[in-house]
Amino acid sequence: NYTKLDKLIIGVCGGDGIGPMITGMAQHALEALLADKVKAGKVEFRVIDGLTIERRAELGCAIPPDVMEELKQCHVILKGPTTTPRKGDPWPNVESANVAMRKALDLFANVRPVKVPELGIDWTFYRENTEGGYAVGSQGVQIADDLFIDFTVATSQGCERIARLAFDYARKTGKNRVSCVTKANIIKTTDGKFLDTCQRVAKEYPEVEFDDWYIDIMTAKLLDEKRRRDFKVVVLPNLYGDIITDEAAEIQGGVGTAGSANIGKRYAMFEAIHGSAPRMVQEGRAQYADPSSVLRASVMLLEHIGEIELANKLDRALDICMFEEKKVVVNGRDTGATAQEFTDYVLETIAKL
Amino acid sequence: NYTKLDKLIIGVCGGDGIGPMITGMAQHALEALLADKVKAGKVEFRVIDGLTIERRAELGCAIPPDVMEELKQCHVILKGPTTTPRKGDPWPNVESANVAMRKALDLFANVRPVKVPELGIDWTFYRENTEGGYAVGSQGVQIADDLFIDFTVATSQGCERIARLAFDYARKTGKNRVSCVTKANIIKTTDGKFLDTCQRVAKEYPEVEFDDWYIDIMTAKLLDEKRRRDFKVVVLPNLYGDIITDEAAEIQGGVGTAGSANIGKRYAMFEAIHGSAPRMVQEGRAQYADPSSVLRASVMLLEHIGEIELANKLDRALDICMFEEKKVVVNGRDTGATAQEFTDYVLETIAKL
Ligand SMILES: CC(C)[C@H](C(=O)O)[C@@H](O)C(=O)O
Ligand SMILES: CC(C)[C@H](C(=O)O)[C@@H](O)C(=O)O
Repeated sequence: NYTKLDKLIIGVCGGDGIGPMITGMAQHALEALLADKVKAGKVEFRVIDGLTIERRAELGCAIPPDVMEELKQCHVILKGPTTTPRKGDPWPNVESANVAMRKALDLFANVRPVKVPELGIDWTFYRENTEGGYAVGSQGVQIADDLFIDFTVATSQGCERIARLAFDYARKTGKNRVSCVTKANIIKTTDGKFLDTCQRVAKEYPEVEFDDWYIDIMTAKLLDEKRRRDFKVVVLPNLYGDIITDEAAEIQGGVGTAGSANIGKRYAMFEAIHGSAPRMVQEGRAQYADPSSVLRASVMLLEHIGEIELANKLDRALDICMFEEKKVVVNGRDTGATAQEFTDYVLETIAKL
Repeated sequence: NYTKLDKLIIGVCGGDGIGPMITGMAQHALEALLADKVKAGKVEFRVIDGLTIERRAELGCAIPPDVMEELKQCHVILKGPTTTPRKGDPWPNVESANVAMRKALDLFANVRPVKVPELGIDWTFYRENTEGGYAVGSQGVQIADDLFIDFTVATSQGCERIARLAFDYARKTGKNRVSCVTKANIIKTTDGKFLDTCQRVAKEYPEVEFDDWYIDIMTAKLLDEKRRRDFKVVVLPNLYGDIITDEAAEIQGGVGTAGSANIGKRYAMFEAIHGSAPRMVQEGRAQYADPSSVLRASVMLLEHIGEIELANKLDRALDICMFEEKKVVVNGRDTGATAQEFTDYVLETIAKL
């Protein structure tokens, strides 16, 4: 319970590319919303530099030790996108900082809401965040000359804690429907375990409807105008969660519009679901990057620290800007509004609520 | 080269649910189109019964041995959807017949075209069809009490043959662009191998543009109206091919509208990409099932056996019915046309070409 803390420390970790700028916007919005508590010394924002691809490459690690140290002193973290090297990039092959942070802080639940009011869409994805194809990192094996193997991992404990979180949320919010997505007809052992576990947990929540889908058909169902409104809370293994939330975010208006909460027992980290967009920076267009992803992540951060009323206000203002007035959200692309102008307009909208 | 055969044998394997009916429609269309050759004894249709979930369950196998025997005597196979038992179904846990057939006949390439002329979409997916998460079947392992593992597999040979087929097709058709889709930033060993191989093969096709994407962002890109037209030929590992082609098919009008070719060195099998829809049968609506998936598969069958002109005609007629006149394609759902009426209308349309 964060409200009982003497001082709540919010770490702001900018990351790469457009990251520092958009997290700066989110910090700006949060500081405005939490101004009283900041003034009273009850909330502190702590900017954490040094989670950059240059330093990570230099040190050859996913997260520099000093950054990790600082992260662990925060209660919650707001994080910008970080660059994961691709083949052909100038950097050596360091691991994804997102994935490393999720594992190091045991952030087992990746919660990704997507909504499009005019289409009747209001989805919350509960992506398992530490197992599946992500558990073993790059430790696949080569056997003999020409056999390459990767591993997918599941544990009952891992499946159960994400399932419970999804069902608790479905019950608490009255959404009352959980859909489980796997490929248990093929990936039988691990996805089978995931599905079994969800089915078992479902029995403890008789008021919550439960159904299950295969990941292939689920990507089609998200586009089915008649059926997709039925989905409410969706729980899925790591990789399927990764895949399907990008599709869902695109339906909402683009991956640039979706925020994500990475929740563990002790820590919580809030981030955009998109990448660091180095090209925008190179082309000098960084100030037009869409901050709505980190602002949505900030809604979840506020909720998480118990500031429900502020969370609702920020969420409502974003809805107004993105779905009702519409003209501002498509910032940069169509209206020429900068991230700063957009963020200020969101704050003005809150003031008028 | 099939045109040199004394007699070409086309196996028709109905499968489960709506399968026998819709493959019957495809056979009906193919018999009409190939009528001269059938009369002259140069083409024979051979209906293969017994690939039903009841028999498979009874024998406890994915494909009954007598069916496999018969399949191997055919040159090409037209196959209806087959039921893969799900948890809670009355059947014991027999393997997917699709997957078993792909492996047994070494049908390493799953080719799935999707087009929506009015949106400028003309995609051909080359899905690797024997490796990835599908290679080891259900042989995952449980280690100690609570660690479950599945395996994903790749070989250079497996990656290379699908890559070559995709590039050959891109060059031959003048589509001149191949996009590779993996999650090589996480599934590093096998997806890394797949991507490496595609990059290496790409060098041998300098006239074909090459790019690569991660599967998560690719599900978003397929929905991006500005960018998606750039995709032409897409090559991907098994599971991502499974996932993304259902999304693509939905954009085309539903998984019920997409056909698929499973191609190997010696055999080829053509099928719908959707399931057996047992509910339609139970509810007495089987005659309204959409046969356009197997008719699209028949286009590929005709191409494959060298009947390019007939293939083009059938394809053109389907385009007219599905995209231009539109009223017939939504058969059953909106117009009340049966599969038979739809198929006959497609044949009438061909006659008028
Ligand atoms: C950057 C990448 C490793 C990461 C993931 O796959 O989880 C990203 O796509 C995400 O969804 O946060
Ligand atoms: C039925 C299932 C095993 C199969 C697959 O996963 O390949 C199907 O979805 C397909 O795409 O043909």
